[in-house]
Amino acid sequence: MGNQEAQLYRPPGMRVLSRATVSRMPRYLRLLDDIREAQATVSSDELAEAAGVNPANVRRDLSDLGFHGTRGVGYAVGDLRSRIQRELGIDHRRKVAIVGAGNLGTALAGYSGFRQRGFDVAAIYDISSERVGRLVGDVIVTDAGRIGHDCATGLFDMAILAVPATSAQRVAEELVSAGVSSILNFAPVRVIVPNDVPVRHVDLSTELQILSYYG
Amino acid sequence: MGNQEAQLYRPPGMRVLSRATVSRMPRYLRLLDDIREAQATVSSDELAEAAGVNPANVRRDLSDLGFHGTRGVGYAVGDLRSRIQRELGIDHRRKVAIVGAGNLGTALAGYSGFRQRGFDVAAIYDISSERVGRLVGDVIVTDAGRIGHDCATGLFDMAILAVPATSAQRVAEELVSAGVSSILNFAPVRVIVPNDVPVRHVDLSTELQILSYYG
Repeated sequence: MGNQEAQLYRPPGMRVLSRATVSRMPRYLRLLDDIREAQATVSSDELAEAAGVNPANVRRDLSDLGFHGTRGVGYAVGDLRSRIQRELGIDHRRKVAIVGAGNLGTALAGYSGFRQRGFDVAAIYDISSERVGRLVGDVIVTDAGRIGHDCATGLFDMAILAVPATSAQRVAEELVSAGVSSILNFAPVRVIVPNDVPVRHVDLSTELQILSYYG
Repeated sequence: MGNQEAQLYRPPGMRVLSRATVSRMPRYLRLLDDIREAQATVSSDELAEAAGVNPANVRRDLSDLGFHGTRGVGYAVGDLRSRIQRELGIDHRRKVAIVGAGNLGTALAGYSGFRQRGFDVAAIYDISSERVGRLVGDVIVTDAGRIGHDCATGLFDMAILAVPATSAQRVAEELVSAGVSSILNFAPVRVIVPNDVPVRHVDLSTELQILSYYG
């Protein structure tokens, strides 16, 4: 998922983590969020179970972050949590726009997990005059004609595409022109943007395919 | 994602693949679907790029499936595609039920990717009398009271939970009692079921967290 080149454009001075390591960070973080009030340290075994990998993977991943743990004690929950949040760029809250106020966009706008994990839905856009002005989640649907202006003036910096396949490329280009940081694409089509704008493509059928292996 | 134990319950005689290998299979398959009319063979480099891993990973994954490729030629697209489909259990079409006909359930029912990838939405359920009887995608919303009967009689074998967090555990238990094969859970809460029923939990904020690392 996402474009292959995304890793090449980390700001200078930041260590580049492998894709696999990055993909495990949210799973470590979820465990750390869950346990942080109950325990001060966490073992590589616990982290391994949460991420579905083996403890050696965990130790390697965390060593890439500069964490080495203490034998028999493990890792400090608070420190590790802060470090992963900083590495993922979510030590401050991120402002996200959703483009498309159909069923999927509306469902995403109401998804409580985003806020819990540090993402605020700052705006939702649609082209339909029937949808513009409606309240969805906590925000009012705005005319899609405002996307470029709102992005350029900093109302949001990440965008989620929940538009039909036929509109996705055009909307992505508009977002890129306006300086969007990154795009999460739920539209069932690949979008092509310059390499310095990371895109992840969510294919919901992938999950069913993986599940199908197990049952 | 999913329960840790899922791998322990493969039918006897089936090779157990690692979680990481299984998670890459849909990405290989997507590339194979895309290129199968245009080319007869595929290189490990092409597969590696599609899956975001290195070619050595690809060769190891495919060797676990009994595929070794031919130096300078690569892998036969048709054979490899059939083998992955068989391994994932999607060499025949799978019948899926969606529980919850709110925004997310409705969006999932209309998601064209499921059908393309071998999954047919056989039913969609809700408890709301306002939603029951409505046409969503190609199916009519059925009263949730029918879930157990319909699952037990084979109308579907996989289920997608698109219900509120407060209902997820109860619905999961009902599905398990009726003999569901596996559950894909979009509700923002973990559900606990016996180890022989695989569950994958989709946390949509994971994708935003990963993306946030890159931009």
